[in-house]
Amino acid sequence: RLRPVAPQDVRVTDDFWAPRLRRNRDVTIPAQHAQCETTGALRNFARAAGSVGGDFSGRYYSDSDVYKWIEAASWSLATDPSAELGDRLDAVIKLVAGAQDTDGYLNTYFSVDREGERWTDLVVRHEMYCIGHLVAAAVAHVRATGETALLDVALRACTHIAERFAPGEVPGTCGHPGLEMALVELYRTTGDERWLTLATWQLDSRGAGVLDGSEYLIDHEPVRNQSRVTGHAVRALYLYAGMADVVLETGDAELRAALERLWADLSGGKTAVTGGVGARWDGEAFGDAYELPDRAYNETCAAIAHIFLAWRLLLLTGEPQYRDVVETALHNGVLPGLSQSGTEFFYQNPLADAGRHRREPWFSCACCPPNIARLLASLPGYLYTTSDEGLWVQLYIGNQADLRLADGTTVRVELTTGLPWRGAVGLTVSPAAPTEFTLFLPVPGWAGDDVTVTVNGSAVPVTAGSRQVALRRTWSAGDTVELTFGTEVRALVAHPRVAATHHRVALARGPLVYCVEQADHDAPVAAIRLRGTEEWAAEHQPDLLGGVTTLTTAGTAVAVDDGPLYRPYSAVADEAQVSVTAVPYYAWANREPGEMRVFIPLASR
Amino acid sequence: RLRPVAPQDVRVTDDFWAPRLRRNRDVTIPAQHAQCETTGALRNFARAAGSVGGDFSGRYYSDSDVYKWIEAASWSLATDPSAELGDRLDAVIKLVAGAQDTDGYLNTYFSVDREGERWTDLVVRHEMYCIGHLVAAAVAHVRATGETALLDVALRACTHIAERFAPGEVPGTCGHPGLEMALVELYRTTGDERWLTLATWQLDSRGAGVLDGSEYLIDHEPVRNQSRVTGHAVRALYLYAGMADVVLETGDAELRAALERLWADLSGGKTAVTGGVGARWDGEAFGDAYELPDRAYNETCAAIAHIFLAWRLLLLTGEPQYRDVVETALHNGVLPGLSQSGTEFFYQNPLADAGRHRREPWFSCACCPPNIARLLASLPGYLYTTSDEGLWVQLYIGNQADLRLADGTTVRVELTTGLPWRGAVGLTVSPAAPTEFTLFLPVPGWAGDDVTVTVNGSAVPVTAGSRQVALRRTWSAGDTVELTFGTEVRALVAHPRVAATHHRVALARGPLVYCVEQADHDAPVAAIRLRGTEEWAAEHQPDLLGGVTTLTTAGTAVAVDDGPLYRPYSAVADEAQVSVTAVPYYAWANREPGEMRVFIPLASR
Repeated sequence: RLRPVAPQDVRVTDDFWAPRLRRNRDVTIPAQHAQCETTGALRNFARAAGSVGGDFSGRYYSDSDVYKWIEAASWSLATDPSAELGDRLDAVIKLVAGAQDTDGYLNTYFSVDREGERWTDLVVRHEMYCIGHLVAAAVAHVRATGETALLDVALRACTHIAERFAPGEVPGTCGHPGLEMALVELYRTTGDERWLTLATWQLDSRGAGVLDGSEYLIDHEPVRNQSRVTGHAVRALYLYAGMADVVLETGDAELRAALERLWADLSGGKTAVTGGVGARWDGEAFGDAYELPDRAYNETCAAIAHIFLAWRLLLLTGEPQYRDVVETALHNGVLPGLSQSGTEFFYQNPLADAGRHRREPWFSCACCPPNIARLLASLPGYLYTTSDEGLWVQLYIGNQADLRLADGTTVRVELTTGLPWRGAVGLTVSPAAPTEFTLFLPVPGWAGDDVTVTVNGSAVPVTAGSRQVALRRTWSAGDTVELTFGTEVRALVAHPRVAATHHRVALARGPLVYCVEQADHDAPVAAIRLRGTEEWAAEHQPDLLGGVTTLTTAGTAVAVDDGPLYRPYSAVADEAQVSVTAVPYYAWANREPGEMRVFIPLASR
Repeated sequence: RLRPVAPQDVRVTDDFWAPRLRRNRDVTIPAQHAQCETTGALRNFARAAGSVGGDFSGRYYSDSDVYKWIEAASWSLATDPSAELGDRLDAVIKLVAGAQDTDGYLNTYFSVDREGERWTDLVVRHEMYCIGHLVAAAVAHVRATGETALLDVALRACTHIAERFAPGEVPGTCGHPGLEMALVELYRTTGDERWLTLATWQLDSRGAGVLDGSEYLIDHEPVRNQSRVTGHAVRALYLYAGMADVVLETGDAELRAALERLWADLSGGKTAVTGGVGARWDGEAFGDAYELPDRAYNETCAAIAHIFLAWRLLLLTGEPQYRDVVETALHNGVLPGLSQSGTEFFYQNPLADAGRHRREPWFSCACCPPNIARLLASLPGYLYTTSDEGLWVQLYIGNQADLRLADGTTVRVELTTGLPWRGAVGLTVSPAAPTEFTLFLPVPGWAGDDVTVTVNGSAVPVTAGSRQVALRRTWSAGDTVELTFGTEVRALVAHPRVAATHHRVALARGPLVYCVEQADHDAPVAAIRLRGTEEWAAEHQPDLLGGVTTLTTAGTAVAVDDGPLYRPYSAVADEAQVSVTAVPYYAWANREPGEMRVFIPLASR
């Protein structure tokens, strides 16, 4: 079992990520506070407190926008202290606290004129879900600041739920999971086993008809029996992440076995090449196995939920496959959700588009924008883990960290890297005193066997196929490790069962998935054909799309004629030579609208 | 301009179709009457009349289920007189008439407790749509029986609408089109120009914000300006069919030009190989051009609407391309919507499935089942048209018909055919007296240039590429025409812009599109690969799926390994020889559940 590190112990200095985290702090988080003001989500709390009148604004889950903003702001404060943000945060928390009922209940929708509707519809209304975000925000706030004002609110709300849906007595769970994860965090923060018990009870309340037995709401069978990832993607993955949290704390073997089956189903046939998940637009849902179309829904929140689940399974097992998923989903499933400006967002992340899908400043269901903000603000917490054996690097993102090992040793680590563009990583490891421990370094799946490792300049052999290098030695201040990873362009095909991308390749290099956009081509993107075996030229273009490495090759373009929509197979169109340029998928739709494709057809002949 | 013939003038004797029409009459129509009783749709009329109490059952458009049943029953009565069905029909019509308000208003949802909500929401509620189906039913009933009881109800309802949304004064149109077509039929039936004016007014009320300017509801611009097929597929095609009806009666050049642009968009990039339309499950809507995925929505009603539109454009232009669409959509877009039993239905008709999509006896939104029933009951009316020049065969379906030409000559036609299995057609043409006229015989697109024609045993030359043979001569009783059409198996690919079916072929033979089902294979359907150029053996199997011609060839099956979901292009799986069997797509999902595919991948190497 691995342990996470606190975000505030890690200062991101990375050329790629540090500007993004700054933008999150300086632009996105303030803009989202403004959105919560504009939409009335903040005002709803004043209304519930009785200090203003008028109607409720938004939806029955609008409170969660505010809670996610608090969480994002708290993690930001943890790594970048700011009196201004601290004051703003305190004001919002005061507003939230003021809206809580004396019995602990808190949801501003079910206040004033809708008090009678509380807990009348667990299926549709998101009361527990919202409290989940309250708890997550409260935990972040207390960890960032040591202040317990919001934690007290969260504890009262959870006490209310624990009494209303008492473990062992009254089955209770929510149409939208989320509280399960949060309750385990509350247990970790407070040490009060009540919350772990309540989380487990919420999980085991499923499959008994509380949610009408709906498969869409993952209530069709007890979670312990489940094997097939189904239903609303974000709900399903929040639920599984909550299961993983319970397993982390209890070791529950039955839940763990269910998680292994569910992960096999998810990773084996229901994950986009970008780490996006949830193929169907109808219902924002998982499709059948191998149903991986170009027009995938791939909700930004689902990619975040995918990270939540993979991270917990990483903590549980230490297996590098899970950090690969975190890395892929972060770069290619979440990052596309954010515009270069930091103020516009994708809800859906399809793998192809005709040019009409564009990022927007906010949504009537605004789950994704603050979800991105809170993930980015907490990103420093995803770079390392520790264990009894030593220190594990998980994401190769440049940083300076002051970490504490299991035995209490403090270690300063400096990590520099050219990723995601260049496969070079340098570490300086400086324990407070010379100490023997293992430094675990993942070999990303994308590097294959093209990897070198040196310690203080001496090469370390790496076993072919190995996905992790474990360097056990007595480390002394200033010890250095250098790694190189191959960044050859990979032309990827999907499993032969996947029909939608048959005879097409997706391009990837390092941790990034690429796409072709109309802005880089004269020929229609739809006409571009590859051979799959071509050589690609990678060139860094600092002035393009905030600085990206483009990939270029000689491909072909078929004639896109005006002929009939269906024609005999023999009639293959002529092909012309064209230059093909691919850009990182995360950067798409930041130029003029036009066609985009991740999977590029291979020539038919 | 072509003219349709009355269904009752044509007796279908076809080996393929006659049993289906009998099943429609003997099984489907009675079963749907029972459904209208079970769901309370019939009872709603009694409730509105005040003869029973209780709550309204179903949705605000449930009346349309009953109207569609009346239409189906009426057309059935037209071709197959039945005292029992006539009595049942009279009883239902009496029920409908009793529910009408004195001011002509009729919708049982907006009755009793909801009278105050009438005409308050043109966007969502389907008040005009329901009246459209009432009118269509009334027209069918009067044409079948000569009785005007229901026509009187329809006229009062339309008068109410014409007063409430007076042409030139109050813009009025419905979120769900349908009334437009019906009003033109009412004009044709009554000769009263008021209904043509009202139909045109409803069309021209669009684009002015009556429906909030919604693109989904095709209110984003005046219909005269439209070029892009968009929004809810059934609504869009009902609307365009209404436009075509107005053009047929008025010759409106602007509307006609819009229809030509819209048809080019529809046929050029938004039609499935089956004639199904409306690719998106979210919103039952059209996708972007060339968005033609395996998991297409292809609502059965949309295929019917596609036939309505194509038929009207055929009447307008006489161009054989439109009868090809009617034929394709009928065999492959509508027929799959019906089970072999005649009592279960598909709402969606995807081009691939993992085995979970099965037909159901009814739906909470039950638009499709009675839509199939009314189309099949009226099918005899789609076999011929007439014009000033003579007689046009449109669908090669075996029948005996007594038709009247423009000059009043009556002609008995007997048509026999082995279609859809064998490409042989024989006609005996017997005018009451020897008469000179042209017999127009389409050369279906699927036959290519593999066509022969003889008249009284003498060969008639057919121009290469010709899609129609026009036989002008003096016809005498007993003259015979024999046609043969090639029924080579066609391996079809989609336009090169279509990514979803890249390097895959759909099989077709004659008018039928085929698919592969798991029931015929040991290897997973997903593993099957073709070369695109193989020879197929066609074999008629009278005991399979009600009697079908299967297609068999030697293909390959790739290894469906447990490897990663994404892998380098070079790693192509090994292939084994397998026998591949295809069955008509219309017959799928009538055996044990299993995977189905229309587009079969071609081998990668």
